[in-house]
Amino acid sequence: MNQEQIPPVMKLPEPTLRRLPWYLAFVKLLKGKGKTRVSSTQIAREISVAPSQVAKDLSFVNVSGKTRVGYEIETLIAALENFLGFTVQHKALLFGVGSLGAALLHDSGLKQYGLEIVAGFDIRESLADTAVNGIPVFHLREFPARQKTLDATIGIITVPVDQAQDVTDHIIAEGIKALWNFTPFRIRVPQDAVVQNTSMYAHLAVMFNRLGIINHRK
Amino acid sequence: MNQEQIPPVMKLPEPTLRRLPWYLAFVKLLKGKGKTRVSSTQIAREISVAPSQVAKDLSFVNVSGKTRVGYEIETLIAALENFLGFTVQHKALLFGVGSLGAALLHDSGLKQYGLEIVAGFDIRESLADTAVNGIPVFHLREFPARQKTLDATIGIITVPVDQAQDVTDHIIAEGIKALWNFTPFRIRVPQDAVVQNTSMYAHLAVMFNRLGIINHRK
Repeated sequence: MNQEQIPPVMKLPEPTLRRLPWYLAFVKLLKGKGKTRVSSTQIAREISVAPSQVAKDLSFVNVSGKTRVGYEIETLIAALENFLGFTVQHKALLFGVGSLGAALLHDSGLKQYGLEIVAGFDIRESLADTAVNGIPVFHLREFPARQKTLDATIGIITVPVDQAQDVTDHIIAEGIKALWNFTPFRIRVPQDAVVQNTSMYAHLAVMFNRLGIINHRK
Repeated sequence: MNQEQIPPVMKLPEPTLRRLPWYLAFVKLLKGKGKTRVSSTQIAREISVAPSQVAKDLSFVNVSGKTRVGYEIETLIAALENFLGFTVQHKALLFGVGSLGAALLHDSGLKQYGLEIVAGFDIRESLADTAVNGIPVFHLREFPARQKTLDATIGIITVPVDQAQDVTDHIIAEGIKALWNFTPFRIRVPQDAVVQNTSMYAHLAVMFNRLGIINHRK
């Protein structure tokens, strides 16, 4: 690294970023069992990844293991949680308090991973000024004014498909740069924005297809 | 294809399976706007995929477009929904009625995509014989007996990480072959079982990292 770069700001390979939470979950499990040290070989065996890959992935995180001794579990957990952004609360607004949107408002577990949904917005008048799981829900028209005080950095999109792009444009116009898109619609954003797609229905399609193959083999 | 294979039973490449729901969402949107035909070029432009890739993906589905005219939207929607398994209800049981588990029970939208959660199970006595969103919740000890009559084909895992493997083994022992794993734990299953991992927290980690880069650039 020639330029001075702070590790959490490096653009990590997505596969690495997706594996690190697996490592974290496993190491926390070991901690719960009273263990204090773990080797990359142990992690590798558990996660079914090559030991060299585990060592490489962990080299991005600011933590070093010792030969034969491995990593100190406490240190590794703290480093991973910090590196993955789970220790800082990122304020998020949720758009579309329908079935999936309300479900996400119910998931208090997200907070443990650094995501704090501070408000929901919907175009239905009947939902305005209500609350779900203690999180206030406002009419969408209030979004620009509310954002001024809420100052959220993430927009969660759970609107119907035909409103996905309009809502995206609206969120971007208010200066929010990161979008977590749960709709099966491919939203378009400016180059300096971040989109994370979590299409549960695409995951279902993959699972149904694989299940069909198994049932066919019987 | 030399052997006689029914398309839905073919093992499709996962990227194709993940793109097909994007196509479906877009084509349904066009239908809502009163359109009756769509070309693969139009789909390609909208989804930001090469037109040849769209044509190839759609060739797996039992539907053919005509040169210059494209696909009939009604036919394409029906073919995609059928092919993706969204028209048949797959019965699922959910394990772990905590924050995320209860959230999924609240998401009635899954039904429209072919997933019907028929019961939830938990080890907490206080949750036994309650219901979430009309879906009954039983104590985990009732699972084997309930499964005999419910005959579900999918198990959804939303238990705490330290119980993920035990619950997985229990589900597999009762003959369920497809597991939708929402925990950040890498569960192990027999070779003839299917696992779909949806680790929302891994998606969060990717988003936080990308957002950190943007903020750093400012």
